Amino acid sequence: MAILLKSGRVITADSDSICDILVQDEAIAAIGRNLPMPENVQVIDCAGKLIVPGGIDPHVHLSMPFMGTFSSDTYETGTRAALHGGTTTVIDFILQKQGNSLRAAFEEWSGRASGTAVGDYSFHMAVTDFNPNTQLEIEDMVNEGITSFKTFMAYKGALMIDDAQMVGLMQEVKKHGGLVTAHATNGDMIDTLIAQHRAQGKLSPLYHYLSQPEVTEAEASGRFADIANYTGVNAYIVHLTCQGALNQVRRATERNQRVLVETCIQYLVLDASLYENEAEGAKWVMSPPLREKKDQATLWAGINQGLVNVVGTDHCPFMWEQKLLGKDDFSKIPNGHPAVEHRMELLFSEGVSKGRITPQKFVEVTSTNAGKIFGLFPRKGTISIGADADLVVIDPEKQHTISAATHHMNVDYSGYEGWELTGKIETVLLRGQVAIEAGEARVGPGYGQFIKRGKTAF
Amino acid sequence: MAILLKSGRVITADSDSICDILVQDEAIAAIGRNLPMPENVQVIDCAGKLIVPGGIDPHVHLSMPFMGTFSSDTYETGTRAALHGGTTTVIDFILQKQGNSLRAAFEEWSGRASGTAVGDYSFHMAVTDFNPNTQLEIEDMVNEGITSFKTFMAYKGALMIDDAQMVGLMQEVKKHGGLVTAHATNGDMIDTLIAQHRAQGKLSPLYHYLSQPEVTEAEASGRFADIANYTGVNAYIVHLTCQGALNQVRRATERNQRVLVETCIQYLVLDASLYENEAEGAKWVMSPPLREKKDQATLWAGINQGLVNVVGTDHCPFMWEQKLLGKDDFSKIPNGHPAVEHRMELLFSEGVSKGRITPQKFVEVTSTNAGKIFGLFPRKGTISIGADADLVVIDPEKQHTISAATHHMNVDYSGYEGWELTGKIETVLLRGQVAIEAGEARVGPGYGQFIKRGKTAF
Amino acid sequence: MAILLKSGRVITADSDSICDILVQDEAIAAIGRNLPMPENVQVIDCAGKLIVPGGIDPHVHLSMPFMGTFSSDTYETGTRAALHGGTTTVIDFILQKQGNSLRAAFEEWSGRASGTAVGDYSFHMAVTDFNPNTQLEIEDMVNEGITSFKTFMAYKGALMIDDAQMVGLMQEVKKHGGLVTAHATNGDMIDTLIAQHRAQGKLSPLYHYLSQPEVTEAEASGRFADIANYTGVNAYIVHLTCQGALNQVRRATERNQRVLVETCIQYLVLDASLYENEAEGAKWVMSPPLREKKDQATLWAGINQGLVNVVGTDHCPFMWEQKLLGKDDFSKIPNGHPAVEHRMELLFSEGVSKGRITPQKFVEVTSTNAGKIFGLFPRKGTISIGADADLVVIDPEKQHTISAATHHMNVDYSGYEGWELTGKIETVLLRGQVAIEAGEARVGPGYGQFIKRGKTAF
Amino acid sequence: MAILLKSGRVITADSDSICDILVQDEAIAAIGRNLPMPENVQVIDCAGKLIVPGGIDPHVHLSMPFMGTFSSDTYETGTRAALHGGTTTVIDFILQKQGNSLRAAFEEWSGRASGTAVGDYSFHMAVTDFNPNTQLEIEDMVNEGITSFKTFMAYKGALMIDDAQMVGLMQEVKKHGGLVTAHATNGDMIDTLIAQHRAQGKLSPLYHYLSQPEVTEAEASGRFADIANYTGVNAYIVHLTCQGALNQVRRATERNQRVLVETCIQYLVLDASLYENEAEGAKWVMSPPLREKKDQATLWAGINQGLVNVVGTDHCPFMWEQKLLGKDDFSKIPNGHPAVEHRMELLFSEGVSKGRITPQKFVEVTSTNAGKIFGLFPRKGTISIGADADLVVIDPEKQHTISAATHHMNVDYSGYEGWELTGKIETVLLRGQVAIEAGEARVGPGYGQFIKRGKTAF
Ligand SMILES: [Zn+2]
Ligand SMILES: [Zn+2]
Ligand SMILES: [Zn+2]
Ligand SMILES: [Zn+2]
Ligand SMILES: [Zn+2]
Ligand SMILES: [Zn+2]
Ligand SMILES: [Zn+2]
Ligand SMILES: [Zn+2]
Repeated sequence: MAILLKSGRVITADSDSICDILVQDEAIAAIGRNLPMPENVQVIDCAGKLIVPGGIDPHVHLSMPFMGTFSSDTYETGTRAALHGGTTTVIDFILQKQGNSLRAAFEEWSGRASGTAVGDYSFHMAVTDFNPNTQLEIEDMVNEGITSFKTFMAYKGALMIDDAQMVGLMQEVKKHGGLVTAHATNGDMIDTLIAQHRAQGKLSPLYHYLSQPEVTEAEASGRFADIANYTGVNAYIVHLTCQGALNQVRRATERNQRVLVETCIQYLVLDASLYENEAEGAKWVMSPPLREKKDQATLWAGINQGLVNVVGTDHCPFMWEQKLLGKDDFSKIPNGHPAVEHRMELLFSEGVSKGRITPQKFVEVTSTNAGKIFGLFPRKGTISIGADADLVVIDPEKQHTISAATHHMNVDYSGYEGWELTGKIETVLLRGQVAIEAGEARVGPGYGQFIKRGKTAF
Repeated sequence: MAILLKSGRVITADSDSICDILVQDEAIAAIGRNLPMPENVQVIDCAGKLIVPGGIDPHVHLSMPFMGTFSSDTYETGTRAALHGGTTTVIDFILQKQGNSLRAAFEEWSGRASGTAVGDYSFHMAVTDFNPNTQLEIEDMVNEGITSFKTFMAYKGALMIDDAQMVGLMQEVKKHGGLVTAHATNGDMIDTLIAQHRAQGKLSPLYHYLSQPEVTEAEASGRFADIANYTGVNAYIVHLTCQGALNQVRRATERNQRVLVETCIQYLVLDASLYENEAEGAKWVMSPPLREKKDQATLWAGINQGLVNVVGTDHCPFMWEQKLLGKDDFSKIPNGHPAVEHRMELLFSEGVSKGRITPQKFVEVTSTNAGKIFGLFPRKGTISIGADADLVVIDPEKQHTISAATHHMNVDYSGYEGWELTGKIETVLLRGQVAIEAGEARVGPGYGQFIKRGKTAF
Repeated sequence: MAILLKSGRVITADSDSICDILVQDEAIAAIGRNLPMPENVQVIDCAGKLIVPGGIDPHVHLSMPFMGTFSSDTYETGTRAALHGGTTTVIDFILQKQGNSLRAAFEEWSGRASGTAVGDYSFHMAVTDFNPNTQLEIEDMVNEGITSFKTFMAYKGALMIDDAQMVGLMQEVKKHGGLVTAHATNGDMIDTLIAQHRAQGKLSPLYHYLSQPEVTEAEASGRFADIANYTGVNAYIVHLTCQGALNQVRRATERNQRVLVETCIQYLVLDASLYENEAEGAKWVMSPPLREKKDQATLWAGINQGLVNVVGTDHCPFMWEQKLLGKDDFSKIPNGHPAVEHRMELLFSEGVSKGRITPQKFVEVTSTNAGKIFGLFPRKGTISIGADADLVVIDPEKQHTISAATHHMNVDYSGYEGWELTGKIETVLLRGQVAIEAGEARVGPGYGQFIKRGKTAF
Repeated sequence: MAILLKSGRVITADSDSICDILVQDEAIAAIGRNLPMPENVQVIDCAGKLIVPGGIDPHVHLSMPFMGTFSSDTYETGTRAALHGGTTTVIDFILQKQGNSLRAAFEEWSGRASGTAVGDYSFHMAVTDFNPNTQLEIEDMVNEGITSFKTFMAYKGALMIDDAQMVGLMQEVKKHGGLVTAHATNGDMIDTLIAQHRAQGKLSPLYHYLSQPEVTEAEASGRFADIANYTGVNAYIVHLTCQGALNQVRRATERNQRVLVETCIQYLVLDASLYENEAEGAKWVMSPPLREKKDQATLWAGINQGLVNVVGTDHCPFMWEQKLLGKDDFSKIPNGHPAVEHRMELLFSEGVSKGRITPQKFVEVTSTNAGKIFGLFPRKGTISIGADADLVVIDPEKQHTISAATHHMNVDYSGYEGWELTGKIETVLLRGQVAIEAGEARVGPGYGQFIKRGKTAF
């Protein structure tokens, strides 16, 4: 069956025009004005609406194993919520278990996602134990369509690799044309500060923040860039939050290096003053933590400077009950925050509606750049002929309010409760199917596919 | 009449798909696969070819008054040559005469261009005398669709404004939402070095180069950025050539400023060793001069870092006889070099074919970014519905050789004589008309229109 | 006759010891413990006191011609006040008159100083009109012992030279081994801002401050460093006040350049909040203006980093009546502030007593570094055998209060009225004579000598 | 008994005068011209000679345990050779054994040095295992006069501490007013590169160099500065060799931090081209390795910029037979190079005689700065009354040649064989005794004393 999106204002990273989009099967078949209508076509009137490419959130953690339990959004609930928010593809993180193979982790993660995801998904491979065996698996993973390799410079003993492993991994990934990404914070420093705060009885959420000062991120970002520059690998920093870290990236440009940068929506719109709320501060306990106003300014500027390329979420929700595990000790609060559903509406409202970024830039950082960087382009990240018909219809003037009572993520609080936004996502298509319409999901578990990815073309 | 470009690989800044493009009247009417053909449509088979948006060269000097004569390309010959090279729109520089009004210059320049241009054109206004009268004219010019204001930090007594005028101009332009651009070199330093070289009998073209060392450009670029940052105006550096200057832009990012940057094709592919050729060095006498290999590396990196936004030409050709005015004294050589015809083919061959940049980046820097920065977007700079049907068909594998014997610019030498390129522009449409086909122009003088421009949306 | 300073704690840039100093004729003859006493020796008991080298203030303006009158301290009153404050040598600025020769200015200035100075003095030559004639005089001036050449990047039409002259001057000074110094602020920008404030009726002292924002100094400091680096000349920035400017110096170090830096005592201890006092703000109207707390922090750090080499005063006093010339228009307030008498006590109290700098660093920045930089060393700037016996005895614990009622400068207000200091200068020797004792001057007009200077040895 | 050094040109960091120095007992008693001679005084005629303060080399390794043997200079041979070269005080490194206490290491090292040293010595404490027990010992060590704590960011499993320990150590040292120093190279990266080179059969000395590229030092220097800045501790980088590392220090100045820097004489005068000599390359196998010409330029500039504060040696000699342990594998070559004897003569010849630095700067970086930084000042590092009479008489014009055949270090080769120097050290006094005269040592084992050190005063 075909669908005709009629008379919308189509916005991509490089266009802005009022026209029709004809979808056939899974793909975009034609774009034009007054396109001839095939028979049996379903017409969606988009007059007065914007149509943008389906969002790509390259940083989510669904059903992530944690202390015997899991992050509270499954591939089903998480990708469904993502669809409600216009994000048609997510990239989740497989975590290698130290001592085990990448393959084993790939199978475990695939098992959880397969047949349950509502929206499309792919995986990054987090290499937590780089050794001669792991080295041999890198090429395999690239062949499986997993072309980006995540590293943790923190969480020693669980996820962290040291710089020796970092060099080796980067060299191997470069050989196969892949990308190395990093959670770039100095885990050793942070571990010390956490231990000191705990020893001093400083246990409230505020000390989560104070245990990860700006320097811990700036230092690691610089180190990651340095090693990447030495090896020549393509490098990407996930969830960059602060001026100190972005300045390391800026300085790396002076040696003709390009370091790709992702920030997350929360770092643009929330700040560390929330940690002063002792009772509710756990809602925003994530790593890195929220930062200062000056850092928000840096990140918005970075987007317009072309130095911050992607706005993701690091979506990793936990139920309030799970968060309460740390009610007496910030270090026991499960890290993470639910955001996958509101990334695009928040950025639209705070960015486009408030005039901080152009609509084209909005599309770039929510979809196109991630598509190019992570090898999904030109299948995803764009509105063009033959591309997946992942389309998002936005009512740009519509006011609405965020609330846990109405959101679709499987979590019983919102970090944005009561926020009033301008611009509402109304209809979402995923691979040619209406996935979201009138606030309801029209596709179900298993509709989401695993997307094999190619190499960075950015 | 309609035209159907059939089965080309359409490349824009954010897409890559094989499809048809239907052109009706002056605009793009539909994009799709197997689009239904209207009657009387002209079909152009584009199988195996790339189709990109018509190029925008925001830096040309046509019929530029000079010492009683003019640069050798008129609006007719220059825009026709541009079309041959896939550039469908050029932005020329009106030069205010010191003591006279902007309006007078606008009329003079419009008079020369109007009715003679073959391709589309617009103007920047070079403000060479900012005073209370000029100040009053800024808003007028914005209303005329001239939203970018050029400044010269060199050529004292002719074109240069001092920093006092710069502050005032920037404040006024900011008030009206315009853009200030700069030829950012320290004219005072250069004048001294020229005079010293002449006094020492150092008169060959090499001394043109040595009179404009990197510091003269780095210094002025930093100063321009500093003043722009103070005033808050949108700023753009034309023909940036070197590491020192780009580093000033990079450092400006640390204070959350964005300075837009144009380089020109010659700075990416030629270097200063050409000045050692005493007999022919005059061919490359331009300001700033060609630089070093390290600077080429910086510029290519800058493109991929997102910090070099536009590749123009500073096209300003002079006949060899005109160049010979300076055969005994480099300071008398008319500055400039013919390039408008080869910008896109050179960048395609050296950039895309050699794997230095993606095809999308090629489109960004030859067309889309200039479109957005200079207020032509979304009418130009993209392939989208309703946009001007400015389309360029490239045979990506075709080898060809540059020569003055075959080029279309009105100049009797080439700075690239004998260069072998991969990728040839075959067919060019301008506003729905086939403008170039089989090496011949199909539109004539007067077809080119003056395009009123809006504000920067980048 | 001989003088024996007995049992003082002698502090120099590289020593700290309790001993005696024997002075004979004009010089230091011996240093030791329990030195044998010559006959007829005058003994000064220094037990519990510090003895430091006589201060060198390399930035004063005495009897400076201004609007038909002069700065209010003459060579007599100014050098006498300096002596009261432990400064035994000052370097004043000769101002070339545009159109006239350096020689003529030298003679005019020498005429005013000769026979009237109480303390020792030398001159910098401010080159305000660099042309072929001036060029020929540079070597003459070096031969006269005037080895440092001041430039103004502000005050167009009166003192400012442009960058063309700057290049030429630097080249010539380098040839003769001299030093180029700069008042590094962007005069063109400042002139514009002054004119704008006046046009808007913003006439209070606060607008003096707002007409010289940090960027005007940072920009010019960077430009001065750039040109100096190109020419290779030894460069020195006078009265550097702010973070932006010092950062330019810091960045210049990355290209292996050394730019010498002077700040003045007022920039370390006063800040711009004083300009909010409309009635008295004129007291602190000087150029550059006082800055922010962050800038004070930068300057103190810069001293300890070895990047701020000298603390001077830019002493240029005007009577309150003279200051009142600008009571209705900040731009008419004579620029300058009286400080030569309190430089050393202020820095001792705020720096040494408060633990911000070591006593050795105090000596470096008040005396030794200026001695080395300006070619007075080893005759001055140190306590060593054969050096001029310029010695300052300080009671390090003594509390006292600054007041116009008690100071010795010829000006009827103080910028530090009521400030309580720890550490008082008690006795001062100049070339072997007790110059100050018990608050009284013991030498008179004409005792001060013109000191020919050699080249920088730093 | 008393000694009178007659009519020498006395050079200190802040003086230059021809005079006599009277030494009584261990200290300097008087300085003057034509000082009265006590009875029984020994007169040393210094006419035409320079007299400088005894050198302080803050970086030596004597009898350093290594693979079951020791570095080849004992406290006897090493300090005696140092005296021959004008270095009267050395600071050696105690190495905590991981798992053991600081006290145990202190006793072991003291045992080896005590009664055997010919020249004066002190110790740094290398903390290789920072844990709660170590933490308690920091204050003890400060009380023992060991106020500087060395860290290794390389040599994992033997000497390296991680960033967690670094934070803790810095906090504790700061509490007690001490100094933290670092061997700042990224050990993890280096270990990987060594392993890779070995796996590839790249075993010659050249691969020692290629296993420690500039980035490994630049990265670690930046990280060390970052952590130090966070903790607020006084920080010092030992043996800094390259532009990348010094640039990290320069950039740290922008946040108002001061990082103290030591380079070593070999990095100023030798470069990495020596590693191309496969047979002899082992002579210069040290860590960090020799660098490039650009790095030498940076270091000389850094000295004059005031950013490189100390020139040491990292003296750690091994007999050629010991070096041959690595003849088939660079990673087995004992690291280190003999230099303690020639530091001052090399720097004098290459620095002062060639006009790169002033004589005062020579004294600063060979003696005074180390004295101030390491708490030896004003007892050592200066020529002043009451200071230890550690004095070096130099014949500034005398030519001589370095050779293993004539040097006094206990090592059978020289890294400078055949170098011709201008300026020879002729006589050396240590605490009032003639220690070296006419090429012979006049004091013996046990004359050297352990010097308790105070806190940094710089
Ligand atoms: Zn993370
Ligand atoms: Zn994450
Ligand atoms: Zn130009
Ligand atoms: Zn131009
Ligand atoms: Zn001034
Ligand atoms: Zn002044
Ligand atoms: Zn070491
Ligand atoms: Zn060592």
